Amino acid sequence: MIIRPYTRRVHFYETDQMHIVHHANYIHWMEEARIDYMEQMGFGYAKAEELGVNVAVVGIECVYKKPALFGTSVQVVCRIGNLTPVRMSVMYEIANTETGEVHATGESKHCYLNREGRPVQLKKVLPELYEMLCASMKEEV
Amino acid sequence: MIIRPYTRRVHFYETDQMHIVHHANYIHWMEEARIDYMEQMGFGYAKAEELGVNVAVVGIECVYKKPALFGTSVQVVCRIGNLTPVRMSVMYEIANTETGEVHATGESKHCYLNREGRPVQLKKVLPELYEMLCASMKEEV
Amino acid sequence: MIIRPYTRRVHFYETDQMHIVHHANYIHWMEEARIDYMEQMGFGYAKAEELGVNVAVVGIECVYKKPALFGTSVQVVCRIGNLTPVRMSVMYEIANTETGEVHATGESKHCYLNREGRPVQLKKVLPELYEMLCASMKEEV
Amino acid sequence: MIIRPYTRRVHFYETDQMHIVHHANYIHWMEEARIDYMEQMGFGYAKAEELGVNVAVVGIECVYKKPALFGTSVQVVCRIGNLTPVRMSVMYEIANTETGEVHATGESKHCYLNREGRPVQLKKVLPELYEMLCASMKEEV
Repeated sequence: MIIRPYTRRVHFYETDQMHIVHHANYIHWMEEARIDYMEQMGFGYAKAEELGVNVAVVGIECVYKKPALFGTSVQVVCRIGNLTPVRMSVMYEIANTETGEVHATGESKHCYLNREGRPVQLKKVLPELYEMLCASMKEEV
Repeated sequence: MIIRPYTRRVHFYETDQMHIVHHANYIHWMEEARIDYMEQMGFGYAKAEELGVNVAVVGIECVYKKPALFGTSVQVVCRIGNLTPVRMSVMYEIANTETGEVHATGESKHCYLNREGRPVQLKKVLPELYEMLCASMKEEV
Repeated sequence: MIIRPYTRRVHFYETDQMHIVHHANYIHWMEEARIDYMEQMGFGYAKAEELGVNVAVVGIECVYKKPALFGTSVQVVCRIGNLTPVRMSVMYEIANTETGEVHATGESKHCYLNREGRPVQLKKVLPELYEMLCASMKEEV
Repeated sequence: MIIRPYTRRVHFYETDQMHIVHHANYIHWMEEARIDYMEQMGFGYAKAEELGVNVAVVGIECVYKKPALFGTSVQVVCRIGNLTPVRMSVMYEIANTETGEVHATGESKHCYLNREGRPVQLKKVLPELYEMLCASMKEEV
């Protein structure tokens, strides 16, 4: 399955007085791209929630390489970095859409929660999604 | 009852590339000040929610006079602008804490909702709060 | 000249604990749409800045009608509300892209500043843009 | 030198529809605490900028342990994690002010830039600050 990169404009309100995008906004972009990635896989947020599974963020990392600027567009490529029955990590590369220059790389770590907020095994509660994520990892390699 | 102005620092991430606080952040400050105002009146958000009443925002206005800058502190003075059994508006003046120079004035308009999200009469569901807001309006005049 | 509405997804991080988009984010959407509108007219932010003219926000208003939700898409229609040699206002209608249901209407008021931050007459410094905005107003009527 | 922890309320607009603080906001809190820490050391942002040194963020990490909630207050403790002539990292612990329960731990990595945006050696351009940071590290140990 081919997943398209997530593309979006840089907004004026995302800049700070250094005349660059404030570093916290990259965390927003990672979220946007991750949600888009899951949707393209046929497992959008609404569907997961409907099935009673919430994906929680347990860790985040971002390495900043070159500041993104207002007036440009960025492209975020996601891939599954790690997958166990109870944990998942997503890796990100954020680049300028036109030049391909990399602004940042990142990773988000997740666990799965049921409606009561208790951790659950994705492999058990959503085996279909778990298989897709496994398959996606293999394709990437 | 004397309500103290709400004071807070301007944060770096609140600036934009014009080297001033981005105008949308003033709406955040109005919310912070309104919640603090209600708390000082003994009717914090938690208490209202516990009693089954949510305050919804139905309109917002802000007039920008002089940009606020990172590294300064702002002071927000609230007062009840209008009060009917089903509606309330809060007026704001946002000024530099040291110089008193006014950055902006604003207004937020609200209605009251029950747990099901239906509009209710504050005068009926929270008569105690309604009386306090009335009294507060008179004091201000 | 036909200006396309500005369309974008609602992001997860734009929601608040009321399970709706936080009201301050509509101000962001108005900015995004306004910048897109100016770009479609051939006068993007970069071009105006290059010509030494900054557009400052001097006032904002928003009337909230029906909450926008994560998982949906919104469409923002802009039109010039008022235009004098030194002032401009932009009117907004924010609606659900699929159903057309209106989430909010808004207005932003602007003046024009030169590189030193002094107010200038748009009619004098950017007559071409001023004429386009005038023409755009007439078309809308 | 004793540095006080940085304390602040959790704001309503910082929550998301999971009814918890959105994870990107912790990055804001780390910035607020870091700026406060530097100010307490007598080297506020304004002073560093005046001396021609900007501190850039080159990496960020956050591990989320227990969600922070609106209506509470958080306390952020900073300490210098690593210091070389050209790099610095700051470690954070974010906890509930009342209960001490830890919400998250984090780290931010920084380099120093001159007015032209070029990396510089802090040890050379601001030896006084460099010594203070060194001393601060020793005290913490």
